[in-house]
Amino acid sequence: MPPLKVAEYLFRRLRQLGVDSVHGVPGDFNLTLLDYVEPAGLRWVGNANELNAAYAADGYARIKGIGAVVTTFGVGELSAVNAIAGAYTERAPVVHIVGTPSRELQAGRKLIHHTFNDGEFGRFAQIHAQLTVAQASLRDPRTSPEQIDEVLRQCLLHSRPVYIEVPVDMVDRYVADDRLAVAISQPAVVPAQTQDEVVARIVERINSATQPIILVDGEIRPLGIVDEVQKLVNTTNWPTWTTVFGKGLLDETKPNFHGIYRGTYETAEVQGFFNAADLVLCFGPHFSSTNSYFYTTIPKPDSAIFFTDTEVKFGTDIVRDIPAKLITHLLLQNLDLSRIHQYNPYPSLPHDQLLSFSEVDGSQPITQDKLWRLLANFLRPGDIVLGETGTAGYGVREMALPPHTRVFAPVTWLSIGYMLPGAQGAALAQEELIASSKYHGITDARTILLIGDGSFQMTAQELATIISHKLNVVVFLINNDGYTIERCIHGRKQRYNDVPRWRYLQAPSFFGASDDTFTGTARTWRELEDALSNEAVSNGKELRMVEVFMDREDAPTGPLSMLIEKQQASDGL
Amino acid sequence: MPPLKVAEYLFRRLRQLGVDSVHGVPGDFNLTLLDYVEPAGLRWVGNANELNAAYAADGYARIKGIGAVVTTFGVGELSAVNAIAGAYTERAPVVHIVGTPSRELQAGRKLIHHTFNDGEFGRFAQIHAQLTVAQASLRDPRTSPEQIDEVLRQCLLHSRPVYIEVPVDMVDRYVADDRLAVAISQPAVVPAQTQDEVVARIVERINSATQPIILVDGEIRPLGIVDEVQKLVNTTNWPTWTTVFGKGLLDETKPNFHGIYRGTYETAEVQGFFNAADLVLCFGPHFSSTNSYFYTTIPKPDSAIFFTDTEVKFGTDIVRDIPAKLITHLLLQNLDLSRIHQYNPYPSLPHDQLLSFSEVDGSQPITQDKLWRLLANFLRPGDIVLGETGTAGYGVREMALPPHTRVFAPVTWLSIGYMLPGAQGAALAQEELIASSKYHGITDARTILLIGDGSFQMTAQELATIISHKLNVVVFLINNDGYTIERCIHGRKQRYNDVPRWRYLQAPSFFGASDDTFTGTARTWRELEDALSNEAVSNGKELRMVEVFMDREDAPTGPLSMLIEKQQASDGL
Ligand SMILES: Cc1ncc(C[n+]2csc(CCOP(=O)(O)OP(=O)(O)O)c2C)c(N)n1
Ligand SMILES: Cc1ncc(C[n+]2csc(CCOP(=O)(O)OP(=O)(O)O)c2C)c(N)n1
Repeated sequence: MPPLKVAEYLFRRLRQLGVDSVHGVPGDFNLTLLDYVEPAGLRWVGNANELNAAYAADGYARIKGIGAVVTTFGVGELSAVNAIAGAYTERAPVVHIVGTPSRELQAGRKLIHHTFNDGEFGRFAQIHAQLTVAQASLRDPRTSPEQIDEVLRQCLLHSRPVYIEVPVDMVDRYVADDRLAVAISQPAVVPAQTQDEVVARIVERINSATQPIILVDGEIRPLGIVDEVQKLVNTTNWPTWTTVFGKGLLDETKPNFHGIYRGTYETAEVQGFFNAADLVLCFGPHFSSTNSYFYTTIPKPDSAIFFTDTEVKFGTDIVRDIPAKLITHLLLQNLDLSRIHQYNPYPSLPHDQLLSFSEVDGSQPITQDKLWRLLANFLRPGDIVLGETGTAGYGVREMALPPHTRVFAPVTWLSIGYMLPGAQGAALAQEELIASSKYHGITDARTILLIGDGSFQMTAQELATIISHKLNVVVFLINNDGYTIERCIHGRKQRYNDVPRWRYLQAPSFFGASDDTFTGTARTWRELEDALSNEAVSNGKELRMVEVFMDREDAPTGPLSMLIEKQQASDGL
Repeated sequence: MPPLKVAEYLFRRLRQLGVDSVHGVPGDFNLTLLDYVEPAGLRWVGNANELNAAYAADGYARIKGIGAVVTTFGVGELSAVNAIAGAYTERAPVVHIVGTPSRELQAGRKLIHHTFNDGEFGRFAQIHAQLTVAQASLRDPRTSPEQIDEVLRQCLLHSRPVYIEVPVDMVDRYVADDRLAVAISQPAVVPAQTQDEVVARIVERINSATQPIILVDGEIRPLGIVDEVQKLVNTTNWPTWTTVFGKGLLDETKPNFHGIYRGTYETAEVQGFFNAADLVLCFGPHFSSTNSYFYTTIPKPDSAIFFTDTEVKFGTDIVRDIPAKLITHLLLQNLDLSRIHQYNPYPSLPHDQLLSFSEVDGSQPITQDKLWRLLANFLRPGDIVLGETGTAGYGVREMALPPHTRVFAPVTWLSIGYMLPGAQGAALAQEELIASSKYHGITDARTILLIGDGSFQMTAQELATIISHKLNVVVFLINNDGYTIERCIHGRKQRYNDVPRWRYLQAPSFFGASDDTFTGTARTWRELEDALSNEAVSNGKELRMVEVFMDREDAPTGPLSMLIEKQQASDGL
């Protein structure tokens, strides 16, 4: 066997970890590196620009557990930083690989293009050190495999982005291949000093609780405890809520699942029940303003036990170095179901409801208060639903989900433009999982993007990637003539909240789709019903697109509608 | 008069400096700030995304001498960093204004959206400290005016980007208005200790030179010495070359102007003459690899005198603290034209040549070797021509220019996607200069974008801004089916150098242009001639677009054609 090269080592490792496609954009400092992508059995997905490529890698990573993006020095990598920051914030394990100038050029401080023309080559790595959990600058083939392994391990451990610099002249350096035989491993699970004590303490709280509930947040995905938490939800049958971030991670058809807990935006009954709980088991908490309805969903310290990446918090009492994976495992082992509280009768708590087209007047215009519950009828098991920041990001929270549906909703980073490339990456990951029969036995799932006109304009060109890779994506474009969510917050009538009026449905044709690509318009409920029942929309295999017209000042019921009503009222309306 | 607020102060200062339009994207941390844009008499240009907005502000700044972009905390500002880096590298004075969370949220380390959910608010400013020459974090209304003035001064002095953070709750704080009465000034010109000595030394070198030449580089624009250098070129009548960066800054119709000096890519005669010079006055040098044809245009130390921002370099002997503006001024005063070398006869040196359509066979396909010299016939005084990185960025170098033409060509940062939003910003600046009769008496200039398909895909949505602001822009889209410049460098047939095939001419319609917007196709010289002579193309007032088809492996004569021929040869072609 010929000796192994740095690039081969890197891409084989990615393959081993489940990466089957690499996103990115070529540039003269990564071209030779890209020569090794397809020979390694990886698919190359060339995106239109680097921000989009990194967004796509993030979407892919959230579905497959890891993703990779390749950019070029300076111009490419800096274009991607906003996406890398989002991946950091919301824990998407993205490997950012950058092709950099040769060691000779760098050591010689050459005034090469894509620098500031000042001989300084370290700036972009310094920037990435702010945005990634581990960095490797490959300068010595003797240590490159170890460096690669270590950053990949960190990437998986923290479920956060890492950064690898590959100088052009390192790409084909020979490296030892012995490490390849051993899979990249997570740190061994060492029994923690405090674990028995902590388990006992939790079990005691569980056994003595008279109104226990469960609150599941989105970090259970990166923490790798989705199955454990699902088991707990199933076996306890305790009332369970999720957060925006957690939506879609659990089986939402279970009778004890009550959707997203909305804090002060819930009815008095639900708030009352939630607040009266004497135990809230809270898994994977991520209490950003958006995800916690402005901190109003955070359980009270005296009733809550929080399970975070490495800590268990009894309210404000923190026990460190008890990883969530370890403790949930122990908890399941030590739980005596005969001793825990059984709700009998089960309390009357609401569930996410579907709405039927028979309940609306087909001739009436489409409104935000009903749209999302109607759209939810369209969903099938295994679909991925992305609700972009904006009214769609609030709307998606109302959708009742079939099993194995995954949801992308605004959590904390909230960078608009993310969801379209994110949908590309997620759809590709979904396709790969289906192709390798690792998708819950599901074979015909779709990726459904719900997106406002303003967000669409940010990264629209990634439709071309969806088209050229023939991905199964349905786009519902919410055309409400501008940045409606911003109108709700401030400047209802201000011109800065307007956007140019595109002819959105020309997008598929412009971006190269075949002439028979479905596009449709819905202004009334009947038109929407027609679109949803159209065979091409529901069972198409490639891109299709529906433009949904709504009023500029219409927003989903909840925080947004309250905000805009307040502005309207103060304007005397 | 009501007291002045922070936002009012900031925008008035920008107006005083010549900013008439502000680019950007709204976000919840800048909405109230944006309320003050139009009342300050500024035009708001809402771009599709922040990278594009910052690119546009850069294009605007290069034409008007200063530009501004407003983004929102985190997501917005990080999207823009690649453009800010480019502005730093190529000295575009861009003011990056970021709306940030209130001081209360920051001081309370609140887990607000657009953070990493860790209470840390300083990261993005730290990143910008790498990319800007001065930063202001407005936290105290008492010092805000001074802080604003100081960063704007630095912006102008260095002709480089600066960064201003405006927390939401600072926007409407009252500030003293007394500073507004005094214009923001550059540091006073203090006579330098060494100046007489340096002038004498230069004059002596000038008087004794027997083969003196002038090499002009692009930093003469940011250094503010274009007029001085032009005068020197005119009065000496010495052979003068420019660099890529300098192209368009001088009057290229002068008989002693010989276009871009291409180093080892010149004929032996030209190289011989250049290298035999015993004096090279080199103004505003910027010797990056691309701009210096891989360092082959850099004059030999023993013949060269370099005039940089604050130094005069006699070869490798550096005299510091002699600003270019001061020394060129003194030089003009002290030059005795009767004592300097007069070329008689003037040496036979080539000039950029136009090519006429009568010299090509109209039925033949369009080729890179002739395209650019033919396109040059289309230019008129005052036009702005942008040649995007790619084959167009090499082609534009060949174009003979009428007076007052400005050129944007790849210099050092070379971030593809820059030129389309850059054209938007430049066209707006041009329109404003024309409207205020500050454009050399020219009233009908156009902005002409020469761009490859790959680059176009990066930032195509900014066509919508060009359309909605009715800017006078002609787009020549070079459709050569992918990243041809990259094919030249490496991977001629590799799939990563392909791009999805868009239906490019549908762009105006998709992005909202009126139905009568001109679009045309040119595959042959005759079709190109027809397009160029079309009244709508040459004298239209808004967007028009011509798609020019060329071969995938065709490149302008010079470095690119040599590279691809080398690859073809090694593949046995
Ligand atoms: C990169 C980025 N820029 C700006 C913002 C601020 N922002 C948040 S939502 C929004 C408008 C979204 O409008 P649209 O997508 O049309 O959705 P709508 O609410 O109108 O349905 C903006 C500009 C952001 N979150 N991210
Ligand atoms: C932001 C960014 N990403 C990647 C690159 C690397 N790059 C330089 S030129 C180029 C291709 C340009 O192709 P195109 O615009 O089609 O022009 P052509 O040479 O084909 O005429 C690429 C990808 C870059 N310079 N900037």
